[in-house]
Amino acid sequence: MDERSLREAVCQANRDLAGAGLIVLAFGNASAADRAAGVMAIKPSGATYRDLRPEDIVLVTLADGEALGPARPSSDAPTHLRLYRAFEGIGGVVHTHSPYATSWAQAGRPIPCLGTTHADHFHGPVPVTRGLLPEEIATDYEANTGAVIVERFRADGLDPLEVPGCLVAGHGPFVWGATVGEALANAIALEHIAAIATHQLALGPATELPPALLERHFSRKHGPGAYYGQPVREPA
Amino acid sequence: MDERSLREAVCQANRDLAGAGLIVLAFGNASAADRAAGVMAIKPSGATYRDLRPEDIVLVTLADGEALGPARPSSDAPTHLRLYRAFEGIGGVVHTHSPYATSWAQAGRPIPCLGTTHADHFHGPVPVTRGLLPEEIATDYEANTGAVIVERFRADGLDPLEVPGCLVAGHGPFVWGATVGEALANAIALEHIAAIATHQLALGPATELPPALLERHFSRKHGPGAYYGQPVREPA
Amino acid sequence: MDERSLREAVCQANRDLAGAGLIVLAFGNASAADRAAGVMAIKPSGATYRDLRPEDIVLVTLADGEALGPARPSSDAPTHLRLYRAFEGIGGVVHTHSPYATSWAQAGRPIPCLGTTHADHFHGPVPVTRGLLPEEIATDYEANTGAVIVERFRADGLDPLEVPGCLVAGHGPFVWGATVGEALANAIALEHIAAIATHQLALGPATELPPALLERHFSRKHGPGAYYGQPVREPA
Amino acid sequence: MDERSLREAVCQANRDLAGAGLIVLAFGNASAADRAAGVMAIKPSGATYRDLRPEDIVLVTLADGEALGPARPSSDAPTHLRLYRAFEGIGGVVHTHSPYATSWAQAGRPIPCLGTTHADHFHGPVPVTRGLLPEEIATDYEANTGAVIVERFRADGLDPLEVPGCLVAGHGPFVWGATVGEALANAIALEHIAAIATHQLALGPATELPPALLERHFSRKHGPGAYYGQPVREPA
Repeated sequence: MDERSLREAVCQANRDLAGAGLIVLAFGNASAADRAAGVMAIKPSGATYRDLRPEDIVLVTLADGEALGPARPSSDAPTHLRLYRAFEGIGGVVHTHSPYATSWAQAGRPIPCLGTTHADHFHGPVPVTRGLLPEEIATDYEANTGAVIVERFRADGLDPLEVPGCLVAGHGPFVWGATVGEALANAIALEHIAAIATHQLALGPATELPPALLERHFSRKHGPGAYYGQPVREPA
Repeated sequence: MDERSLREAVCQANRDLAGAGLIVLAFGNASAADRAAGVMAIKPSGATYRDLRPEDIVLVTLADGEALGPARPSSDAPTHLRLYRAFEGIGGVVHTHSPYATSWAQAGRPIPCLGTTHADHFHGPVPVTRGLLPEEIATDYEANTGAVIVERFRADGLDPLEVPGCLVAGHGPFVWGATVGEALANAIALEHIAAIATHQLALGPATELPPALLERHFSRKHGPGAYYGQPVREPA
Repeated sequence: MDERSLREAVCQANRDLAGAGLIVLAFGNASAADRAAGVMAIKPSGATYRDLRPEDIVLVTLADGEALGPARPSSDAPTHLRLYRAFEGIGGVVHTHSPYATSWAQAGRPIPCLGTTHADHFHGPVPVTRGLLPEEIATDYEANTGAVIVERFRADGLDPLEVPGCLVAGHGPFVWGATVGEALANAIALEHIAAIATHQLALGPATELPPALLERHFSRKHGPGAYYGQPVREPA
Repeated sequence: MDERSLREAVCQANRDLAGAGLIVLAFGNASAADRAAGVMAIKPSGATYRDLRPEDIVLVTLADGEALGPARPSSDAPTHLRLYRAFEGIGGVVHTHSPYATSWAQAGRPIPCLGTTHADHFHGPVPVTRGLLPEEIATDYEANTGAVIVERFRADGLDPLEVPGCLVAGHGPFVWGATVGEALANAIALEHIAAIATHQLALGPATELPPALLERHFSRKHGPGAYYGQPVREPA
């Protein structure tokens, strides 16, 4: 992907975040990585989504976290960098404070897989991090936010391409995907399943989806046996 | 109905699904049957609603489930086919993951008839299927999803034109009608009554609508004594 | 008001009902009375709001309930008529199935006055009717729906201009005002206060607003000492 | 700021209130102060947001509360004045009846700091006033509404620039900021955090955010060590 396409994809994803109703004010950001070029492109800090232009998007080196301008990157950039470094297959990251997903993050509860909508996007519960320690908050807070996500995935043996998101305790969701467009779709799906799960809890105790149905729905859309969507055309 | 009209009706219903706020991402699909022509027209799998054109709609034979192109049909097509085959009077089917109706489906609870809004559209509770068995999930999953709906209607002696929808346990609603436009209206009504029922449960124990009032409201809009809407004009 | 103005006001109120988010499908209707002319103007039954034109609005005589065309009036017309006949000061009636207000109606609970938003519009709780008896449902159902509203107001000594609405048990809200525009505003306010009250119940037991504050807020906007809004200009 | 800019800023903030979904009908108002000119600019009472023009905005003297026209100011003007007089650093005030924040106000509960979204905007819980006494309601009600807010901040030793808002018991939120734009942003943030907090309470007992994380998030955006947003450019 050339730099212009990278900027355009990240600009569009940030604008779409607002359009999808996941964001009020400036409560969220989207980035994409170009691993060949060794850079991440991310929203400038505090920018409004509506007026964002591709040339406003900030490039940051993946290896050193050096901001290449033209503005200060999102203050959450070090969290995004940690995720790109640890999760090799991902190409886009989205962070929101969308209300239902954030209420689960604040409650420190993983979202169990309660239905096929969930299984279509997450291969099991959406995990939640432990809380950060005072010293992790005091120094390199944003990088440590990424680190506790990675810690959770390592500890639980989770594949970040099968479970494309995590709730940060007391904070909110970080979501990702092979591309920033997929990351955005997963963020929209996460808010939807968090809303359904919240409504469902009002109706009685939550029963997890049977494993066979979880596997079926996840594999319908993901992996070698997927049969959802249109067949990928071979390039001519 | 000629093929062009069938394609246009299905295209419009799929676009309206998104406009009605029942859908995020690609979480839903609408179809219509032309029984004389022996075909069902349905959304292509994974397509975005906004850009859908009548020529993108996929035709599938009702008898054999053969896709006639131009693309791969919705992965839920075998569920729709099962419903058209079992329920002779229906002409349209809509599937959504709308959040309130889905929370009842995930909870495995039928929606009791708690008010006249419900009785205007469903002649009694909105039923819920049993869960699918592992072997029903492993083979012909989507067709079996339709089969458990049909099983519920047969077991409970329900008339699919009087109860135009069903919650699939752990999954979400399938809704239908004499036309795809009616199916869409019933899907909108179902989400509305599921939301009201959810809010009501927070206010105290739910009391079912007295049978006399249920009958009155249903028969106001449906059947020989209906007096809702405008009189149907005889063709000249 | 001449007939054209009456039709335009009712047409606009019905269109605004949909725009205010109170309505899905055709779940509501608005009317206005011209007492001098002895008629009520109301939405045609089953009509869609978006396409409604002033010439589609149906006139019905206040005294006899005779529909003067051009179409069949809303099936709820007899309820509106009952209200106009019993409540002399009202000039407009709005009926919706707006979700939060309807959940209170289905629960059969009056909405207590829990805050100043409520007191700005309703001088005390929003009452709820008793359920209709089987014989009241069997014959003249819609007129009897109006009759139980009037019965509640008479039994409780309520002034319909100070409490401009009522929940019909198992059904939904009927709301009114001196004009159809006021009735619409009161329907919007009712849904808003029902939503707030529902959210509040999740936070703990509901305490009613102190009477002094209720009186202050109601009288700020209504009656001889009102000081909200702009002074009414005398016609030149 | 000249008078024209003041009027435009207040007009725009009132229009944006409606666009942000915080308002139905006329349930809210925004003002800004020009301390050098000794005036506050505020919405006219009962005006509709959509049609508001800068020349409709009403000027009121800060010292005496004298309305300088062209219309009657919002009936809440004396509350705004009290806040400007007591809280020297604030330049804008916004009042809404936004549904989630109002439900906490009606419940008489402060909103605890449960997550970083909250800590980004409020340096600790959002406080709630005591109820007004009957004599405070009977005379100078609106000024006394401001007085109980000021009383709460004095009693709790709160800095109004660090806790830019307060819930008035039984009524709703008053929110402020250095400018009316900031006040509006804080009102949007408050409704968002009230919604998240309400959803979270349905998931289990609420645990307050650890103090270290609260401090980190607040100081990321506010005060001398802030590193959120773009560096302020020195004027050339």
